[in-house]
Amino acid sequence: MQLTDLETPALVLDRNLLDRNLARMREHLTELKMTLRPHVKTAKSMDVVKRALEGQPGGITVSTLKEAEYFLSHKVTDILYAVGIAPNKLDHVAKLRGQGADITILLDSVEAADRVAAKGEALGIEFPALIEIDSDGHRSGIRPGDPRLLDIGRRLHERAGSALRGVMTHAGDSYNSPTIEAIRAMAERERAAVVQCSQELARAGLPCPIVSVGSSPTATFAERLDGVTEVRAGVYMFFDLFMAGLGVCNLDDIALSVLTSVIGHQPDRNWIITDAGWMAMSRDRGTSKQRVDQGYGVVCDLGGRPIDELIVSDTNQEHGIVADRRGGPIDLSRFPVGTLLRILPNHACATAAQHEAYQVLGPGGDVARTWPRFNGW
Amino acid sequence: MQLTDLETPALVLDRNLLDRNLARMREHLTELKMTLRPHVKTAKSMDVVKRALEGQPGGITVSTLKEAEYFLSHKVTDILYAVGIAPNKLDHVAKLRGQGADITILLDSVEAADRVAAKGEALGIEFPALIEIDSDGHRSGIRPGDPRLLDIGRRLHERAGSALRGVMTHAGDSYNSPTIEAIRAMAERERAAVVQCSQELARAGLPCPIVSVGSSPTATFAERLDGVTEVRAGVYMFFDLFMAGLGVCNLDDIALSVLTSVIGHQPDRNWIITDAGWMAMSRDRGTSKQRVDQGYGVVCDLGGRPIDELIVSDTNQEHGIVADRRGGPIDLSRFPVGTLLRILPNHACATAAQHEAYQVLGPGGDVARTWPRFNGW
Repeated sequence: MQLTDLETPALVLDRNLLDRNLARMREHLTELKMTLRPHVKTAKSMDVVKRALEGQPGGITVSTLKEAEYFLSHKVTDILYAVGIAPNKLDHVAKLRGQGADITILLDSVEAADRVAAKGEALGIEFPALIEIDSDGHRSGIRPGDPRLLDIGRRLHERAGSALRGVMTHAGDSYNSPTIEAIRAMAERERAAVVQCSQELARAGLPCPIVSVGSSPTATFAERLDGVTEVRAGVYMFFDLFMAGLGVCNLDDIALSVLTSVIGHQPDRNWIITDAGWMAMSRDRGTSKQRVDQGYGVVCDLGGRPIDELIVSDTNQEHGIVADRRGGPIDLSRFPVGTLLRILPNHACATAAQHEAYQVLGPGGDVARTWPRFNGW
Repeated sequence: MQLTDLETPALVLDRNLLDRNLARMREHLTELKMTLRPHVKTAKSMDVVKRALEGQPGGITVSTLKEAEYFLSHKVTDILYAVGIAPNKLDHVAKLRGQGADITILLDSVEAADRVAAKGEALGIEFPALIEIDSDGHRSGIRPGDPRLLDIGRRLHERAGSALRGVMTHAGDSYNSPTIEAIRAMAERERAAVVQCSQELARAGLPCPIVSVGSSPTATFAERLDGVTEVRAGVYMFFDLFMAGLGVCNLDDIALSVLTSVIGHQPDRNWIITDAGWMAMSRDRGTSKQRVDQGYGVVCDLGGRPIDELIVSDTNQEHGIVADRRGGPIDLSRFPVGTLLRILPNHACATAAQHEAYQVLGPGGDVARTWPRFNGW
């Protein structure tokens, strides 16, 4: 099968680029003598993740219990659920543990630690947990130096229903770094934050076997990771326009695109209308705050090469409007109704989540396989 | 079952509000002696759409062929596929016609009409089609007065592989109306545009049995619809913050919300962290251009009442950050870890599309049923 045999819109994954991205991260982390715990929230596909796990210990990071459940069904047992635990999910976590998942949860308060321990005691099981560290003021976690670290650590360690497994942080603010130097500095800040916390726990006689860091930008540019035990990353598998805007990858590293058809034109406005709207691209406009605003995506030909300065300038649910990024004229006769285009997405996680499968583009331009993916909770 | 028994995040649909919204539109259109062809792109659920079809002829509007396929499997046969047809979908349309769907397609160029007719002739079938009219410069369609109307109409009518069924328009620009008066004016403009085109077709001796208009704002406020044969609308079933910002509904008409748990706090920043991120809410930030920016959603208590001035000020994939809309202090002790909140969404279509089912909230606050929905193409 070829791309021209698909009904549009469709999510296309270039296997060569995927493998190249995976190899690059693997080599970088091998140089740093570090293992990778791939974050599966971007791909949500065993076909992708088994390639990411090559040469790694086999643990993964998940963002939902549905991911945990799916990957457990594919024999992945070492699972870090890296979103602060909600009490109403503990029965589900317990069930997955009962099915053989060595699932570790995350929290950042005494309150949550008490809820977890009490639930574990009520169920007669032990919930292993990491303490979330805030290395950049971005989201959740407690800051290095916060005395609550030891309060939480002691609770988790001492109570029968929980176990302290260590610390983790996510330098989400690396997504706002203006330069590669800033990403490197953020990687060091991420490392320093968790290492400081792990040392505080150790000094208090508390265990801290896991010291986990990660974000695709910091994982790509980290120069040293002493004291860290594992790195998490997900977007690096596919990359996207946001990562290209940050300088983490180039446009031609982006493995994901949305195949779309031209369905009409508005000659007066220099618009090409396509059938890839926000339902196919997602509503993500992450590049709108970057130096180069890529609209809802960069327009490429069937071979994946960007066309002139065409971007998806606006979307409705099932319509995309393709225009020159400066509003200039377009030779519409080059794009008759039925022309196939490929759109590079702003954000791989968000765009992939709008689809139920990857159409896998092989080395010869063939679409040999469909890899299923899933969404929801 | 109660809301407190659900795992979060979950999509909650208030059945009372749904029924009230459906009844209001039904009554309004009955007064105008007009029938409704509900747009199923928002709900993507037979449980919802069968309620919307009460008292109507039974035809629906779809935005994807997957919607056509699903609703056909539920015995809905009169289907308007209201997105300009891509040639690679014609085999699929033909297959659905073969299975009993009286599916009408849409196009706005001679080029597309020729592709459709040629395909119909090759398959030995006739594709019924509407011509899309551009009533507001918003997206697709040809403008009233454009001589191509008759060229397209003649092609569709005269060739064996196609049939001319009429004209349709969607006043998408009504979403940018500053006042209800402006929406009323847009409704009249929408009506006038298609009626003018239907008269032009009639003068040329061409058939035009269908004269279709629609958008939730214009359908809600249209004052006369003479010459029109049907109205399309979808969002009105659920409504959302965008529609409330336009004045099309009130906050307490919004039937859709996302149930979420508090998973932590950042006291220094006056943040409550929840487990409803952009994956649960969608990336839609439609209200950002309205008078009141609602962030990623308005925060309500379990009973659906807005809490103070709390909004979801930012999101990550599976994290929501709840803050006072002016950045003011929050008494975090009111929202301990595990507290359940309900978030009203910016855009019903986008938020619903992130979920696989509606948790149906009954009149007594019980969650008696789960109504499945679907996504994809």
